[in-house]
Amino acid sequence: MDVLNPPQPPSGLFDGPLHLFPVRVYYEDTDLTGMVYHANYLRWFERARSDMLRLLGIDQRAAAEAGEGTYAVAELTIRYLAPARLDDALTIATEAEELRAASVRLRQRADRQGELLAEARIRVGFIGPDGRPRRQPAAWRAAFESFFPAKVAA
Amino acid sequence: MDVLNPPQPPSGLFDGPLHLFPVRVYYEDTDLTGMVYHANYLRWFERARSDMLRLLGIDQRAAAEAGEGTYAVAELTIRYLAPARLDDALTIATEAEELRAASVRLRQRADRQGELLAEARIRVGFIGPDGRPRRQPAAWRAAFESFFPAKVAA
Amino acid sequence: MDVLNPPQPPSGLFDGPLHLFPVRVYYEDTDLTGMVYHANYLRWFERARSDMLRLLGIDQRAAAEAGEGTYAVAELTIRYLAPARLDDALTIATEAEELRAASVRLRQRADRQGELLAEARIRVGFIGPDGRPRRQPAAWRAAFESFFPAKVAA
Amino acid sequence: MDVLNPPQPPSGLFDGPLHLFPVRVYYEDTDLTGMVYHANYLRWFERARSDMLRLLGIDQRAAAEAGEGTYAVAELTIRYLAPARLDDALTIATEAEELRAASVRLRQRADRQGELLAEARIRVGFIGPDGRPRRQPAAWRAAFESFFPAKVAA
Repeated sequence: MDVLNPPQPPSGLFDGPLHLFPVRVYYEDTDLTGMVYHANYLRWFERARSDMLRLLGIDQRAAAEAGEGTYAVAELTIRYLAPARLDDALTIATEAEELRAASVRLRQRADRQGELLAEARIRVGFIGPDGRPRRQPAAWRAAFESFFPAKVAA
Repeated sequence: MDVLNPPQPPSGLFDGPLHLFPVRVYYEDTDLTGMVYHANYLRWFERARSDMLRLLGIDQRAAAEAGEGTYAVAELTIRYLAPARLDDALTIATEAEELRAASVRLRQRADRQGELLAEARIRVGFIGPDGRPRRQPAAWRAAFESFFPAKVAA
Repeated sequence: MDVLNPPQPPSGLFDGPLHLFPVRVYYEDTDLTGMVYHANYLRWFERARSDMLRLLGIDQRAAAEAGEGTYAVAELTIRYLAPARLDDALTIATEAEELRAASVRLRQRADRQGELLAEARIRVGFIGPDGRPRRQPAAWRAAFESFFPAKVAA
Repeated sequence: MDVLNPPQPPSGLFDGPLHLFPVRVYYEDTDLTGMVYHANYLRWFERARSDMLRLLGIDQRAAAEAGEGTYAVAELTIRYLAPARLDDALTIATEAEELRAASVRLRQRADRQGELLAEARIRVGFIGPDGRPRRQPAAWRAAFESFFPAKVAA
């Protein structure tokens, strides 16, 4: 394809302590009710976390391919307040709550032009290829600390 | 196709107060870590709830097509304890915790041969096509009461 | 959320006769092989088509909610040439091949920095809520004709 | 969980040269049109292929984890004839067309009580972890040959 400057996918941006990530609602996200299927918010939240990590300089693919480990959701609570529908432009906001040796606690929200649609609290653990908890790489922890200084555990 | 007796999809079965539903892990459920992507447990739990409702005589499609309304997840907490992997045969167990006019509280678990992989508490509300809460149909409530008599709210 | 200018999701852009749409590969797209699960290219292609339609001024959601009808894939051929992996930034290119009263033929490709990963030919038909073919709205046809004048059927 | 005999997921069955696999349509499969989202037929077809392989004694997970390789779709043509809707019980029929050193050609169909909904021709190649074509394991080829003797390439 002779395209010189193709458009690039968004990675979101940091706005103070928040990472903001845009999402469009497509057919695949909806179900026969015309509303977004509930599990799909988790996919959006994961996309936002992955792009936040990329912006922090963390290379998840290299770590996974090298067998170092990967982040995995350990616990998640989500409340659904209002439905999203086809073509809606949403914002996923992510905020760190706590950083520990082997896990991170985050808050994530989906909103549509200021209207809160869903909010979640998520604990993500670092695990090895065997599925067991493991300390996250020091460089990853340092990247988090530099962006969320007040969230570092004692 | 000249198939006289094609195999039928499973709807699970009731074992006392539990609804049990079988799930196989396929490629689509895994991600590059070799483990099941976390959001996919929510899809399995929803399949189990839908089949439990079908066994109770509740016709979700007719209600949705008639504009009466549909169940929608209002709140969900899930803990992931151990990863599922390709080809695993899992059991989804569903138990009613509380029945109210416009909502139901359920517990759901995924296990593999007795090993607990994930457990969730879920509040499902009945909503109209406008996305707003609505009393669930009397027949649906009666169906729940007949199977979970001790769970009926005062 | 007090965010004044949240980032907006991409809708792609027109580059001559091509619509170009960016996609990032996330965990949800991969499977245990580390490569993207084959069905997910169809989701990306559909996102690109939906955003191309939005740029053309076509409001799919309004048409669906009004019961006028919707586009549905009638036939699709896809060849997979090289795998995409986590974090890859891809471009989906869409080109109209033929415009008819009730359907459109398109070519779509996914590439990564000029390397072709998958290519498809897709026939999309306009159908009513009953699932039967129907003439597409005149305004939609006009929008296509204005952008793809040479592709109009005789 | 103290469940002695949980229900098992279906693996389908062989009926002469056909492998038959049951599928139920759930919320996750539908979109706002009330019909099944087109890409989801590919997920169902892949489930049927995986279960057919399991019945043939082929252990895909062991091969993937050992780095021997995996089947990957190389080319696929699908025609959509009639829509599936929530709660439909479908049958996926799979038939081998041709067996070669590094690939298999299959036909797959989805039908609802004898009504054909979609049909596909699929070429699946065996590839190594690097994504390149590779000869499939001799035992896998032998398993195919024993079930589809007339389909063996000269």
